[in-house]
Amino acid sequence: MLFTKMHGLGNNYIFINLLENTLEEDSLPTLARNLSDVRFGIGSDGMILICDSKVADFRMRIFNADGSEGKNCGNGLRCVAKYLYDHQFVDSESFTIETLGGIVEVHISEKKKEVEYVTVDMGEPKLLKTMIPMIGEPMTMTINEPFEIGGNQYRLTCVSMGNPHAIMFVDDVHKVPLDKIGPMIEHSDIFPERVNVGVVAVKKPNELDYRVWERGSGITMACGTGACAAVVAATLNNKIEKDQSITVHLPGGDLEIRWDENNHVWMKGKAEYICHGEFKLEDFTKEKLLKASGE
Amino acid sequence: MLFTKMHGLGNNYIFINLLENTLEEDSLPTLARNLSDVRFGIGSDGMILICDSKVADFRMRIFNADGSEGKNCGNGLRCVAKYLYDHQFVDSESFTIETLGGIVEVHISEKKKEVEYVTVDMGEPKLLKTMIPMIGEPMTMTINEPFEIGGNQYRLTCVSMGNPHAIMFVDDVHKVPLDKIGPMIEHSDIFPERVNVGVVAVKKPNELDYRVWERGSGITMACGTGACAAVVAATLNNKIEKDQSITVHLPGGDLEIRWDENNHVWMKGKAEYICHGEFKLEDFTKEKLLKASGE
Repeated sequence: MLFTKMHGLGNNYIFINLLENTLEEDSLPTLARNLSDVRFGIGSDGMILICDSKVADFRMRIFNADGSEGKNCGNGLRCVAKYLYDHQFVDSESFTIETLGGIVEVHISEKKKEVEYVTVDMGEPKLLKTMIPMIGEPMTMTINEPFEIGGNQYRLTCVSMGNPHAIMFVDDVHKVPLDKIGPMIEHSDIFPERVNVGVVAVKKPNELDYRVWERGSGITMACGTGACAAVVAATLNNKIEKDQSITVHLPGGDLEIRWDENNHVWMKGKAEYICHGEFKLEDFTKEKLLKASGE
Repeated sequence: MLFTKMHGLGNNYIFINLLENTLEEDSLPTLARNLSDVRFGIGSDGMILICDSKVADFRMRIFNADGSEGKNCGNGLRCVAKYLYDHQFVDSESFTIETLGGIVEVHISEKKKEVEYVTVDMGEPKLLKTMIPMIGEPMTMTINEPFEIGGNQYRLTCVSMGNPHAIMFVDDVHKVPLDKIGPMIEHSDIFPERVNVGVVAVKKPNELDYRVWERGSGITMACGTGACAAVVAATLNNKIEKDQSITVHLPGGDLEIRWDENNHVWMKGKAEYICHGEFKLEDFTKEKLLKASGE
């Protein structure tokens, strides 16, 4: 079975092209787990299948390293768009990709011989407390609101981009002990479904530093929805201007985010090939690998 | 640049064939670091180069994930031997491989269409305290000797197989809090160059369970020299017979170890392909990858 490994800002997946190929549905969780295991498999954050769609130009299915199927992933979407365009499965620079989280519009933004940047429609931000969700007056927004969590005062701006983000503004994102305050805010009673915790420093009117503590994962190198939430939160706090393209510096690389006049947030960033290769399907569809590891 | 990813008991490397190809010497540490990084690269415990030798049939160079060059690795050697035989670079079932730790004899043990098992000469065990090295009477062996470390009593048998191992016998290796006692013994004043810590349970006269805390790495799935040390230690304590093939169960899989009448320890185990593929060399010889990750 042929595969391509790609990453967007270090968020890395094994991509399998099912436009001209099939895989047994029952084997997919095991396959994703085995391929993602760096010791007995290739090693990745998960597996992404590129498929035909009945409702959009293409369909992408994302399986996490634990075998569960995920809704959507901005970093993965950029990779899929690059793969499809570079391999001439599409010749339009704008097309649509069906995900479990909905149909997403993507644009090839810049290309030389290969696609270098891809822009993805990340949808509309949700701002009301009931939509985050969080406790408090349901139909109000949370903009720089003070909260006491674990004995400390935090001023939070809360934005959902499909998943919930609590954003706070700081002078230097690298000096914040995110490994301590991240889990404290994530698990606070304020957020019944927990929350991603982001720290943002405004460097220039069109430039932010951003670090994130991801719900269930901890500190990660890049979070696409979080970068969008950071720009929305900075706009709501009048720290940057709306309709402008904002460069967000993440540990894994840069993203350009624009919150447009139609209330959609667009994310532009790189997608990169790591390698192309081949593995024997029958070696990766059995449960033996994780059992051998004693897990 | 073509590559093959293989593993021996979960110990996994990116193999590059330099029998018909060259790489710039200066680029090797960076290449190893970048390829081993699972986020921006393929992901592995390191990179192994398969080269010509002036003193043996072949030469293997192993670069760890941090870019440093390693001496030897039994799991990696088995993979190299399989690769060379399967790809018809050698047609003899016994041949020699030069490593930084010396010239090693390997045997293709069993094959169907491809090589399944490889046996490697792991050399002679060193038993004197001065050779481990450890404190105490230099010209004596350490066999089931009591030590007080961190307020607890441990009975240790010490064996060097090129690197030092402190072995203790227990009833059930899975019930030992190796994550606690491992680092305590590793850093004890008894071992000036630190030590690998192994726990062994004798299941049958020809079968051991073995778990290891590796010096500098922590708990790992497989340690070839440690499995050899476990069999030597069990023999010295009269728990098994010498000259017999002993099956050692490690979390990553099984090894068969034999301490022969010529005082050499032979290790037989599997080596397995994960995938074959291709990457763009120029993407992995620059330092940019780790810088992008903020490290």
